[in-house]
Amino acid sequence: MAPPHLMTLADLSVGQLRFLLAHSNSLKSACVPHLKPRQNFGISPPTPSWTQSLSSKTVALLFSKRSTRTRVSSETAVSLLGGRALFLGRDDIQLGVNESLQDTATIISSMTEGIFARVGDHSEIEEMAKYSSVPVINALSSLWHPLQTVADLLTLHEHAKLFEEGASASQKTEHLPLRPLTISYIGDSTNVLHDMLVTFPRLGHKMRVGTPPAAAYQCPEPVWNRVKELGCDKNIWWGSDPQDALRGADVVITDTWISMGQEAEKAQRLRDFQGYQVTEALCREGGANPNWKFLHCLPRKQYEVDDEVFYGPRSLVFPEGENRKWTTMAVFDALFGGWHIPSLAGTSLGEYEDAIHTLRSTR
Amino acid sequence: MAPPHLMTLADLSVGQLRFLLAHSNSLKSACVPHLKPRQNFGISPPTPSWTQSLSSKTVALLFSKRSTRTRVSSETAVSLLGGRALFLGRDDIQLGVNESLQDTATIISSMTEGIFARVGDHSEIEEMAKYSSVPVINALSSLWHPLQTVADLLTLHEHAKLFEEGASASQKTEHLPLRPLTISYIGDSTNVLHDMLVTFPRLGHKMRVGTPPAAAYQCPEPVWNRVKELGCDKNIWWGSDPQDALRGADVVITDTWISMGQEAEKAQRLRDFQGYQVTEALCREGGANPNWKFLHCLPRKQYEVDDEVFYGPRSLVFPEGENRKWTTMAVFDALFGGWHIPSLAGTSLGEYEDAIHTLRSTR
Amino acid sequence: MAPPHLMTLADLSVGQLRFLLAHSNSLKSACVPHLKPRQNFGISPPTPSWTQSLSSKTVALLFSKRSTRTRVSSETAVSLLGGRALFLGRDDIQLGVNESLQDTATIISSMTEGIFARVGDHSEIEEMAKYSSVPVINALSSLWHPLQTVADLLTLHEHAKLFEEGASASQKTEHLPLRPLTISYIGDSTNVLHDMLVTFPRLGHKMRVGTPPAAAYQCPEPVWNRVKELGCDKNIWWGSDPQDALRGADVVITDTWISMGQEAEKAQRLRDFQGYQVTEALCREGGANPNWKFLHCLPRKQYEVDDEVFYGPRSLVFPEGENRKWTTMAVFDALFGGWHIPSLAGTSLGEYEDAIHTLRSTR
Repeated sequence: MAPPHLMTLADLSVGQLRFLLAHSNSLKSACVPHLKPRQNFGISPPTPSWTQSLSSKTVALLFSKRSTRTRVSSETAVSLLGGRALFLGRDDIQLGVNESLQDTATIISSMTEGIFARVGDHSEIEEMAKYSSVPVINALSSLWHPLQTVADLLTLHEHAKLFEEGASASQKTEHLPLRPLTISYIGDSTNVLHDMLVTFPRLGHKMRVGTPPAAAYQCPEPVWNRVKELGCDKNIWWGSDPQDALRGADVVITDTWISMGQEAEKAQRLRDFQGYQVTEALCREGGANPNWKFLHCLPRKQYEVDDEVFYGPRSLVFPEGENRKWTTMAVFDALFGGWHIPSLAGTSLGEYEDAIHTLRSTR
Repeated sequence: MAPPHLMTLADLSVGQLRFLLAHSNSLKSACVPHLKPRQNFGISPPTPSWTQSLSSKTVALLFSKRSTRTRVSSETAVSLLGGRALFLGRDDIQLGVNESLQDTATIISSMTEGIFARVGDHSEIEEMAKYSSVPVINALSSLWHPLQTVADLLTLHEHAKLFEEGASASQKTEHLPLRPLTISYIGDSTNVLHDMLVTFPRLGHKMRVGTPPAAAYQCPEPVWNRVKELGCDKNIWWGSDPQDALRGADVVITDTWISMGQEAEKAQRLRDFQGYQVTEALCREGGANPNWKFLHCLPRKQYEVDDEVFYGPRSLVFPEGENRKWTTMAVFDALFGGWHIPSLAGTSLGEYEDAIHTLRSTR
Repeated sequence: MAPPHLMTLADLSVGQLRFLLAHSNSLKSACVPHLKPRQNFGISPPTPSWTQSLSSKTVALLFSKRSTRTRVSSETAVSLLGGRALFLGRDDIQLGVNESLQDTATIISSMTEGIFARVGDHSEIEEMAKYSSVPVINALSSLWHPLQTVADLLTLHEHAKLFEEGASASQKTEHLPLRPLTISYIGDSTNVLHDMLVTFPRLGHKMRVGTPPAAAYQCPEPVWNRVKELGCDKNIWWGSDPQDALRGADVVITDTWISMGQEAEKAQRLRDFQGYQVTEALCREGGANPNWKFLHCLPRKQYEVDDEVFYGPRSLVFPEGENRKWTTMAVFDALFGGWHIPSLAGTSLGEYEDAIHTLRSTR
């Protein structure tokens, strides 16, 4: 039986995306009480046995570039699932240098139960998936960053109340359906954006993207092909005026303007992105929903978003960061633990939750 | 509820220091039998469940400088507590470079249950503690090294018998109270010394410190302020003649003369520290107690102490090194496991032990 | 009680080698079902409690050179035994640089339950073993690579059927005795070869070795002394004609021609090894058994073996690679878990298996 891989969220059905959200929420609820400080040298409540799918198992983390959040979220997710993360960084293994990717993937997959790889060119992770005997999950490649988008979605679902009329931040509830949103992305066409493009429209949201006009900042063809195949393009507006891109935005998202390896282009990029910094003024002038919220995958530079927004009440960036852990845990549990992502119907985390309980009780 | 942090032992009461010693001793007794080789492919005796406070939990080890003992002791302590240490070194994360310390502390603390950080300037760990949502423990900073002093104290308590009249090394007993000692420190005013200054005098010991006269080798003002606040200065003699510093010494301690980052000053430092090498002759001439014992935090260079002392019968350096593990385990169990360091009365490890049994039986 | 170490397989008796093979096989059978994907979010079958000999224990992996397979196999082996591998690479610890090997071995062994070290010069691991209070296992040194040979042997035993008349690859059975083989090694006299020289002849196999004539490619004296002490030299033919070396070969083995640290000699070495590349033609012309199989410790370069052989049906390199994990697990379980490698009689994995069941049932 061939192992299932995850290269991009374009590989998953809408029902599978729903499952991942529901399962993330379910694992988070189950584990948070266990992680609280114990009282009086007593014992913390145990993690439920159904969360221990990686017990005695090892997940190889092959990172050819540094990535703090991806690393910490994946290592802690593996631990919570009872397993062991084996981190191999740039100094531990040079993918494709001393040995072919084929040989490395064959050998490492023969000794571990999952591979989570953060590569340079996307073709590297495709090559590893081709030869691996265990599931390979893309931790970040030149083209895609699937796990970031799952974390973004969980964060939006958890804060669904904020997008309702007259809501306040304290009224967060997980059981409210998330209404269809207008999600604006301002910045470079990065791997982070690409997984949003193949995902948000399929879940009923509209996207508005603003990038500088130069060819370097447009969506790469292999990505746009996937967008069109999935019919997502009908709900994506793309232009070069950041204010246009912000019209009606319920959520504003940006990412770094200078990704790893682009340091030499810094001066040029800073010129090209002038006027793209996310600020209160820009969003007001662009006509965003006055109640707009802000997401960012981190790490963040001041170029792309100012302190007022980033540290202010609109910002969901830190819950979003923490959710990297819970959503990674759900993906690892499904793929590394069971080689299978089920499919769910429904539109709220509450409905998903019920479906998962049913799934477990019928096993 | 704000998490408790540990920046220096000056943060703890005398009762809390006693608890840490007693708890270290208690964890050591409980775990050593489990760690012995098993017989005939059978099972080792299990570690008691009360020691598993970090089960499924992760402790982030953020080390911006290398530190073998601190790393091995903390990783093994976390494992023994049932948890997972996530090491992030200089090549994994550059604290404050690609992201603000505020953002790093916020995110990492949202995904882990404790942060143990070995930083450069002490202000860095203060900044992390300010924004972390979980306890932050100082693994070593420019000013303080709290866990080393706890290990030193446990070692002295375990060898209390050696400081009694007519004792021999084989008569070690853990239940003898430690008599008030004269503790001499010869060398540079390092972080290792600073935690002794705020601790030993509060536990009834006198300190005598000998450093070269230049300003660079004197106690930094922020440290001396804490020493005075705690009333420790009344029991500290400080001078520039190493022989004077050794008068009546029951314990002689030194540390490296050239800390990380001071390599350029090596020639100057070797000149300034001439006459400070700990030897039998120096201690005899200085009038140390003929029965004096030797401590050193390691790694050791011959400059500061010769082989005769370092590898001889006076040396407690290797039990002291091993105790880094047991004392770190106690601190992690209390702070990361339970967010609380209780306070104990009493003066011997035996009395502490009884108090802890009571604590556990009443939970 | 002094801990037992493993520097080379020359340290072990034939009965102990048999035990390691049997125990590897036994651990593999016991653990593989546990590592399969779970069904329907249920629980995987638990690993048997007799495999958990490193529960709460830590094994220090001290690697002064990079080594992917050795690292992944040892980290996963420790995890499967319930323990924690603590990897310390070149950037974490510089063996012998900042501290004497004596002090490092003393301290690290006081905090961990085993040391697995990949060093440069073989004297370094001997020095560590001298001062360690826990077992030290050689992960690879200038002279020896014991764990590779155990993996090779397990692979040959598992494929014993392939060496019988009229066998096909699909008829693999673990319970057939392995007939006496002719094993040819073509290439440089590396650490990988050296452990074969002291092992294969004692288990009834003949070796034929072909290396270029220059002195640099001959067996180092300390190794050859061990070969002679064990009487292995009587069943080793050594010459400089690769075709001669292949006569009657049931198994053909090679290794890299350019080991770490020999990059400067690359051009010279490529000249000296002309004609040594393992190919179908070379083996046919040399008169190998038409049914010959191929082993390689990896990573592999095309110089030493072409794609037709390496990826073809004769190649056992990937099962051999996976077996690094199972054989390392057996060695760690015996030495780190129990400080003892028992001795077995018998000639097949099936007989060994029975003996081990008896061993466990009588404990």
